Amino acid sequence: MVMMHSRMWRRGAWGAGLVALVAAASAPSGQDPFYNAEGDAIGRIVDAATHHGQSWQILSHLTESIGPRLSGSAGAEAAVRWTAERLRADGFDVRLEPVLVPHWVRGEETAEIAGANPQRLLVTALGGSVPTPDDGVTGEIVVADGLAALSAMDPARVKGRIVLFNQAMAAESAFQGYSKVVDQRTKGASEAARRGAVASIVRSVGTLAARLVHTGSVTYDEGVARIPAAAIASEDADLLAGLAARGASPTVHLRLGCHTLPDVPSHNVVADLRGRERPDEVVLIGAHLDSWDLGRGAHDDGTGVAMVMDALRTLKSIGLVPRRTIRAVLFMNEENGLRGGKAYAEAHASELARHVAAIETDSGGFPFVGFTSNVDEPGLSMLRSLASALAPIGAAQIGPNGGGADTSPMKPAGVPQISFDVDRAHYFDWHHTPADTLDKVDPAALARDTAAMAAMAYLLAERADTLPRPVPSPSPAPR
Amino acid sequence: MVMMHSRMWRRGAWGAGLVALVAAASAPSGQDPFYNAEGDAIGRIVDAATHHGQSWQILSHLTESIGPRLSGSAGAEAAVRWTAERLRADGFDVRLEPVLVPHWVRGEETAEIAGANPQRLLVTALGGSVPTPDDGVTGEIVVADGLAALSAMDPARVKGRIVLFNQAMAAESAFQGYSKVVDQRTKGASEAARRGAVASIVRSVGTLAARLVHTGSVTYDEGVARIPAAAIASEDADLLAGLAARGASPTVHLRLGCHTLPDVPSHNVVADLRGRERPDEVVLIGAHLDSWDLGRGAHDDGTGVAMVMDALRTLKSIGLVPRRTIRAVLFMNEENGLRGGKAYAEAHASELARHVAAIETDSGGFPFVGFTSNVDEPGLSMLRSLASALAPIGAAQIGPNGGGADTSPMKPAGVPQISFDVDRAHYFDWHHTPADTLDKVDPAALARDTAAMAAMAYLLAERADTLPRPVPSPSPAPR
Repeated sequence: MVMMHSRMWRRGAWGAGLVALVAAASAPSGQDPFYNAEGDAIGRIVDAATHHGQSWQILSHLTESIGPRLSGSAGAEAAVRWTAERLRADGFDVRLEPVLVPHWVRGEETAEIAGANPQRLLVTALGGSVPTPDDGVTGEIVVADGLAALSAMDPARVKGRIVLFNQAMAAESAFQGYSKVVDQRTKGASEAARRGAVASIVRSVGTLAARLVHTGSVTYDEGVARIPAAAIASEDADLLAGLAARGASPTVHLRLGCHTLPDVPSHNVVADLRGRERPDEVVLIGAHLDSWDLGRGAHDDGTGVAMVMDALRTLKSIGLVPRRTIRAVLFMNEENGLRGGKAYAEAHASELARHVAAIETDSGGFPFVGFTSNVDEPGLSMLRSLASALAPIGAAQIGPNGGGADTSPMKPAGVPQISFDVDRAHYFDWHHTPADTLDKVDPAALARDTAAMAAMAYLLAERADTLPRPVPSPSPAPR
Repeated sequence: MVMMHSRMWRRGAWGAGLVALVAAASAPSGQDPFYNAEGDAIGRIVDAATHHGQSWQILSHLTESIGPRLSGSAGAEAAVRWTAERLRADGFDVRLEPVLVPHWVRGEETAEIAGANPQRLLVTALGGSVPTPDDGVTGEIVVADGLAALSAMDPARVKGRIVLFNQAMAAESAFQGYSKVVDQRTKGASEAARRGAVASIVRSVGTLAARLVHTGSVTYDEGVARIPAAAIASEDADLLAGLAARGASPTVHLRLGCHTLPDVPSHNVVADLRGRERPDEVVLIGAHLDSWDLGRGAHDDGTGVAMVMDALRTLKSIGLVPRRTIRAVLFMNEENGLRGGKAYAEAHASELARHVAAIETDSGGFPFVGFTSNVDEPGLSMLRSLASALAPIGAAQIGPNGGGADTSPMKPAGVPQISFDVDRAHYFDWHHTPADTLDKVDPAALARDTAAMAAMAYLLAERADTLPRPVPSPSPAPR
């Protein structure tokens, strides 16, 4: 459907088609002056973002010239500098807002099945893991298909061994499937340590078996021994589980050289397209600038950064100045600390009552599907009416329960949370793996995403009324 | 189609259906006693291999309990021992025929783009590569899209640099696509060295971009400096080529710890199902026991070994003793030397005139498609007539130009070469990568492959006449 409409994106045809479409879908009388004016604006946004956009150039530079951007790394700092420079070059006032970030470094990492014929396993440390001793740690594998399975196990089976958390992710359910199994990665090490395990290994969370390792944070509980925590490729988890099931009692030798250095100063990058009437009211559009270190942070979250930066630039390039301010925020340290999200909410606490919406994009640069939000039904209905103008770019569906990690610290202040939603079918093929690289992104899809982001931000910033604020809730999204 | 017929594999129904099918396809009179008798035999073979087969158990043990089997490694020797034991346990006389094999070991290997913000590249040494010095080798990247592009280049651009051979493999053409680009892997290092390069890096040959590295042999020309030779993931080749195209002149620091140890004694594993009338006439069925070290040699060539071993066992299990001998040969060292194939042809030189066919399976355990052969048209026609009995298992096509690497040393003696052919669409997703693991194989497809192998071997061994021998040709197949 998207392809069918692509010829309409030339400005004239698109504007006319869009106005007709918007009138039919949302303003039966055809008389609403907001929609006629905005329909034309959106046609111009889509034309500019898809035919004159720079989202691909931004993403290319971020992922290839800069590369991985783990908090505290040279890459992360290069990303702060370069995005700030680029936004300044595009004519925006840019603020670097301080964030003190963790500085965890990976080091060398190896694992193999011990014995006369050692077999190498593909392993990676989980972010924040403590190292093993220099000569590694060795233990017999005990397999637990998730945290509940471990709880049900006789602790004597765990003591002195290495726990393999082997619950597989259901491929078909994307984020739901991820949420169901990711607790064994985040919490498994402490649960294993409570039962005397010497290390914790998790089956890589993901949907593509291509010997990929999937990193992500581990969280250690206070007062529990911190044991080394790693992930192995799904094929290696199958191998160990298969050997164990056949009674072969595999013993693994694990070496992790990772360690945590002192926190380092870093920054959120913030740029405003200042509103013409109510500049102190803000529609925030955000993505995270940091990435894991294994891949190059393309879908997670280079595409988000590219969308946000180029949405702002696109609006400015066609001279659209909305009623309210649209603020681009590139958050630092979403992946292993959320320090940027927290720092923004703290630094801007006094303004949050005038943040009319916060749109976060952190699900990859796949084809645009719509938005989800935590606002109640009247707000969802309003979003539906706005999104109908975006139907030529994608499904433009509106769903409940939206909200991202970086904007979640603004939830207690009642800032309406909106997530940019895409076709997530392949997100967990690449997420947190070495294969999250530029080639996995379709430039045309990314340009349409950018158009959708710019258009929704513009509509929310332009419209006279604002989204009804939801009942405040402090729960952060799982990550 | 295969699924549709699967219910026919119960012995009675299948036998009757098959006889009808064979009669219709190949023996219009319906009177040929060979086809009626063999049709029943093939029904029994298919039933036994698909319902009582052990190909999956063999493959599981070989890939998981043993694992990688690079020539000279403990894994390779474990594979020799275990397959010999298993064939003996199945009641066969097993001969271990000596082969002196190269012993190359990988060691540690790293590569990164040098600079203030170093980017790690996923790298693997090519088999047989010399090491770098301990502190590595550093050079600016010069990109050549294949050997011809290098030849067309001013040698001054190459001297002192690292050549990146970046010709991509066409995904759609499988073996043809592979053959077109693999010369940059086998010959690139010497061609680069001739022009003064300090190292050679090749874009991983393959059809799946999942940050996979693809190893394989490098061949050094005599009298030319031996420079380190490695492969990087296609994403990393894209990265370097992109940076170079944008004028960023990337410099790479490469460290390879691989080295070559003295040759070690190993073995081909040979077992016969002795023929009842002409035991000195041989139908050889072969696969290679060794594998590359990155993955676990599942499709390359564990599935071949499983097919060959279980084909022989299946025939014996149902009491089928053909007119001629069917000989299973598990060759050592196909991947990096072909010493096993050469040793077999030498040791059996006096018998090759009575080798009536040599069937090699080394294209993975994907769904059965048919056979290719180097025999001329009368022979192909005879193969077509035999293969028609296998139509319920797969396409059962017969094509020209067949022949495998391990059987190629028998070509000068005029032994008809036959390749077992499968659906190769995904073979180069996994071939020579860390992801060539058990989970990539479909047990049902492997069982049908085994049935097809057993049936064709039986038909060739049973039939009164033999394939017309082709005009001898010494050219080995590319690998």
